[in-house]
Amino acid sequence: MRSVDLLDTPDGPVVEMIDQTLLPAELVMLRCRTPVEVTDAIGRLAVRGAPALGVAGAMGVALAAWHATAGMTAEIDALRDARPPAVNLARGVDRAAGALAGGYPAVRDAALALRDEEEAASRAMATRGADVVGELLGDAPARVLTHCNKGLLATTGDGIALAVVREIHRRQRLASVVASETRPLLQGARLTGWELERLGVPYRIAVDGAGPFLLARGEANVVLLGADRVCANGDVVNKVGTYAHALGAHRAGVPFLVVAPESTVDRDTASGDRVSIEDRGAAEVLGFAGVRVAPEAAGAINPAFDVTPADLVTALVTDRCVVRYDRGELP
Amino acid sequence: MRSVDLLDTPDGPVVEMIDQTLLPAELVMLRCRTPVEVTDAIGRLAVRGAPALGVAGAMGVALAAWHATAGMTAEIDALRDARPPAVNLARGVDRAAGALAGGYPAVRDAALALRDEEEAASRAMATRGADVVGELLGDAPARVLTHCNKGLLATTGDGIALAVVREIHRRQRLASVVASETRPLLQGARLTGWELERLGVPYRIAVDGAGPFLLARGEANVVLLGADRVCANGDVVNKVGTYAHALGAHRAGVPFLVVAPESTVDRDTASGDRVSIEDRGAAEVLGFAGVRVAPEAAGAINPAFDVTPADLVTALVTDRCVVRYDRGELP
Repeated sequence: MRSVDLLDTPDGPVVEMIDQTLLPAELVMLRCRTPVEVTDAIGRLAVRGAPALGVAGAMGVALAAWHATAGMTAEIDALRDARPPAVNLARGVDRAAGALAGGYPAVRDAALALRDEEEAASRAMATRGADVVGELLGDAPARVLTHCNKGLLATTGDGIALAVVREIHRRQRLASVVASETRPLLQGARLTGWELERLGVPYRIAVDGAGPFLLARGEANVVLLGADRVCANGDVVNKVGTYAHALGAHRAGVPFLVVAPESTVDRDTASGDRVSIEDRGAAEVLGFAGVRVAPEAAGAINPAFDVTPADLVTALVTDRCVVRYDRGELP
Repeated sequence: MRSVDLLDTPDGPVVEMIDQTLLPAELVMLRCRTPVEVTDAIGRLAVRGAPALGVAGAMGVALAAWHATAGMTAEIDALRDARPPAVNLARGVDRAAGALAGGYPAVRDAALALRDEEEAASRAMATRGADVVGELLGDAPARVLTHCNKGLLATTGDGIALAVVREIHRRQRLASVVASETRPLLQGARLTGWELERLGVPYRIAVDGAGPFLLARGEANVVLLGADRVCANGDVVNKVGTYAHALGAHRAGVPFLVVAPESTVDRDTASGDRVSIEDRGAAEVLGFAGVRVAPEAAGAINPAFDVTPADLVTALVTDRCVVRYDRGELP
């Protein structure tokens, strides 16, 4: 199953994606026929995860090329800006847009090539990541803590951090997984829970605030999670809550592994303190599952991501290499 | 306003309390005329917080003494057992029951004395806490981060950590407050939000996972929160999520202040690793307001509290003294 794909139909091309906002209750495939519909889907997080966003963006450009309306340039600009600071989205959009001179067939091929590359990257990260976990843990079966969702839903392949979990499980070296629920949008409870259940892995959900304490109490022996951006100095930008888990892992002496495609590495950004972090507004925080939980007049501060300084990271696993921060290597 | 109080009316005594289960949507005063009604209110968490439970229990005994039914002893036993782990509840009930020989007036006086002691303790913590914050921050207005709810709703006075916030505000030294929502039961969003709104303090709610990053980005210059138990070596047992905030404050160089009544200090427990932490079960984590957020078969790990090692704490403020951990003092 692919989280996002481009299908040619008799009525023209369709970008089909799993509507991640409806999981785990329902598995619904969303079908977008215009770039505006893809932009909207990205904006409301129906599709999310850096590689999936890149592929969705490229496929959105293919829809724009098919319709070729007068507003095409503005539509493509809106797509590129649908989710700052997702660098993969802009890159996917730009790559597909680079083929516009060849019309729809060329843009479609560019988008499908990106999809296939991401799937190959997922397989490479799974193998390298499971190898590193084996090196770090030796004979001990892996007891993994993960945060947010970097699974098949975040890519068009088997996933990123969860592809590593899946590979460890395939090698029969996986004992258990703790998945943090990941407020405010609960991608951990909803999406990672759904994927782990599909994999048949023993797992438990924890509130985000519990992670560092669970590490202190020995409930996991490795942290595996993703990145939305890796800076030149190794700092990691990822879902808010990542930094707290990194602090907890560092204090507990538990390896903290970041799994991310090479395309996430942004050597033009020197360090994490240069990254401006999107505030997603109050509504996500002040309600829970559609129920208002705070006073009517309350405000919120809602950073979508946080920055984990490189010194808290043990290693970065990409589709091309393993960067051992703990041995002084840099991405 | 008192979260719980004993009023004499022409129809006999009444225990009046804020029904905390209806906050922040509605402020409803619950009026109990019998000890059974108080037991029910405690059981369904209409009243919560260690000091408030002690006072509610003592006042429930006063109602029992007024009615003096044949079942009085059983009613008082039920009151004592209404919330099994709450040591303050049993202490409050036993203290009031010790005055039963003097009839209703003696029991009422014992209950009101306990109430007044808790209020004096609240005032003492507020003054000492605001003094320490002033020492630590110098000329800088306080930008406070707090977790969970240690406010007027948890006591019969102005609160514990929030009494300090109120006092800083009264001294015109408060710039802003960030309150973490405090999953799984959202005491921060629901209760602390309600209290801060009443105080007229500028505040914002954040998800628990954001706290350490907000500290790294300078959104607060002091952390103020409570404790359910302080160990002999200074380790702090408090609502889960506290430890993550302590790690973040330590890394950011932000003072981390624990405010707790002297009765919370447990010199019989050498350190936090000796404390067994209650797991409150899966339901709180996996659903909210009747909406299931995780797959049907998911399990959860749900520690109610966590342990913050003493080396991450700057100071402990009690009703009797300030213990400056940062100067090597012990509780």
